[in-house]
Amino acid sequence: MRLRLRPSDDSFYDFFTRAAGNLVKGTELLSELALPGVDVQTVSERLIEVEHDSDAITHALYKKINSSFITPFDREDIYRLGSLLDDVMDHLEAVGSLLYLYGLTKLPSLPRELHEIVKVLDQQARLTADAMPRLKTMKNLEEYWVECNRLENEGDNAYRMLLVRLFSGEYDALTVLKMKEVVDELEAACDAFEHVANTVETIVVKES
Amino acid sequence: MRLRLRPSDDSFYDFFTRAAGNLVKGTELLSELALPGVDVQTVSERLIEVEHDSDAITHALYKKINSSFITPFDREDIYRLGSLLDDVMDHLEAVGSLLYLYGLTKLPSLPRELHEIVKVLDQQARLTADAMPRLKTMKNLEEYWVECNRLENEGDNAYRMLLVRLFSGEYDALTVLKMKEVVDELEAACDAFEHVANTVETIVVKES
Amino acid sequence: MRLRLRPSDDSFYDFFTRAAGNLVKGTELLSELALPGVDVQTVSERLIEVEHDSDAITHALYKKINSSFITPFDREDIYRLGSLLDDVMDHLEAVGSLLYLYGLTKLPSLPRELHEIVKVLDQQARLTADAMPRLKTMKNLEEYWVECNRLENEGDNAYRMLLVRLFSGEYDALTVLKMKEVVDELEAACDAFEHVANTVETIVVKES
Repeated sequence: MRLRLRPSDDSFYDFFTRAAGNLVKGTELLSELALPGVDVQTVSERLIEVEHDSDAITHALYKKINSSFITPFDREDIYRLGSLLDDVMDHLEAVGSLLYLYGLTKLPSLPRELHEIVKVLDQQARLTADAMPRLKTMKNLEEYWVECNRLENEGDNAYRMLLVRLFSGEYDALTVLKMKEVVDELEAACDAFEHVANTVETIVVKES
Repeated sequence: MRLRLRPSDDSFYDFFTRAAGNLVKGTELLSELALPGVDVQTVSERLIEVEHDSDAITHALYKKINSSFITPFDREDIYRLGSLLDDVMDHLEAVGSLLYLYGLTKLPSLPRELHEIVKVLDQQARLTADAMPRLKTMKNLEEYWVECNRLENEGDNAYRMLLVRLFSGEYDALTVLKMKEVVDELEAACDAFEHVANTVETIVVKES
Repeated sequence: MRLRLRPSDDSFYDFFTRAAGNLVKGTELLSELALPGVDVQTVSERLIEVEHDSDAITHALYKKINSSFITPFDREDIYRLGSLLDDVMDHLEAVGSLLYLYGLTKLPSLPRELHEIVKVLDQQARLTADAMPRLKTMKNLEEYWVECNRLENEGDNAYRMLLVRLFSGEYDALTVLKMKEVVDELEAACDAFEHVANTVETIVVKES
């Protein structure tokens, strides 16, 4: 158990909290896509804006790392956590853009299982946003990563059943290929939230 | 060459040995899928059980890391190795489940190249299970990782030729899409064994 | 800012410079595939040769790491950078081999967007080859990784528009599946260049 002087500069935690807060905005926008009569183009454009905000936060974090003499925990871990939070947003944005670009929203309705994965992502985003401020004390984080991993399993199951449905013969091959791209981004977002949780776990294990 | 006190607590090595032994059970079950008249549902259910065993081993290992004051090598490396061994099993289980869920076993026969990748996986599993106990002395491991990488190359070639066959026009597009999912999990398992071997190599390089 | 004795042994930098130089040869070969009347089999075979050269460089680097008492920066980072440069080449080689194996070059012409991604890869390769010798001083590298990331974004956009075109109904489902495999390797190569750049950034951040 190392003794470690924690600098009082809290701005590192602020970056993580803001980045995770942005992910909640992202999953809320994806949830809107399930609403009847939604304007997919508008939602997709708002997702792109939220993704640009995430990029700005990530770059400001990197600048902060490079200009700081002392950091609250390992420089590389701060770097990695920032970059993994950014990865989640990239996948959320991709879902909106691909749905729009492939014209998939002209289908009578998207499969129910797709909305189930979005629900899982929304829960993961809220959990992550709640957990980030607790990095400051490195306490009470275990429940977060356990639950985030459990949700990833739930997402995996929904993904599997969604593929079974896509391959059932209900859709033609090209539609299946388009949907598969979207669904793979949803699943990658689910995984990316788990990578964030695993990195938090690694940091806590190292620092404790 | 650092001097390093190795604690006599051997249970860390036991975890790795048991996890790798479980992977042999997994590849043996996949090999059964090539047998004529096999009951795919039963094999798939047994794979799920073996995967649950792997999860239990992995979680016990993480608990052990968190409660140990001294570890035989870097905490993070123990963590990573455990997590990568677990990844292999996730892919093995997925192969069985997808074959069953997509009803692919109703095909007259699965392509020969698919069984070739399973054979490669079985060899990688046995090599890995043999190598894990040698982590204790960090000796005679080079042959393991070299051979495991060679097998991954062999698996890659089999994968490539399997895709050529799948895309040849012999199967309809939806069947190709289903088979592709299964085959991608086989290939991911092959890669995951290589990641285990690369991590062992990194650990040996660091500790020597 | 740590004081660190840099050994005068420059051969580590030579490995990185040669590995990146080889990637330029790889992207030049891919660029040839856009030329009218090109012999795809020959280009694909030359790519396999260049990939073997990369393997030889990577293994020589690993040997050097294992036999060196002092290294210019962290052993693991040298290892990772070497392995990531090698990954890029694996994807470049795969593009050539798959185009040939799937017989895709018998199509009247490959989509324009595909050549755009090849152009991006060629720019990334040249940037990387230019940057590697600067690792010796750890100076003037920021522009490299910023530009390499920007190019990856450009590649991502080209990839997205290429998929929109592939799924437009212009090609039959099996052709789409084959092209998708090739295009995914191109996109993975683009990502792999970004991973190289990110690793260089991490090393510079750590060492400065």
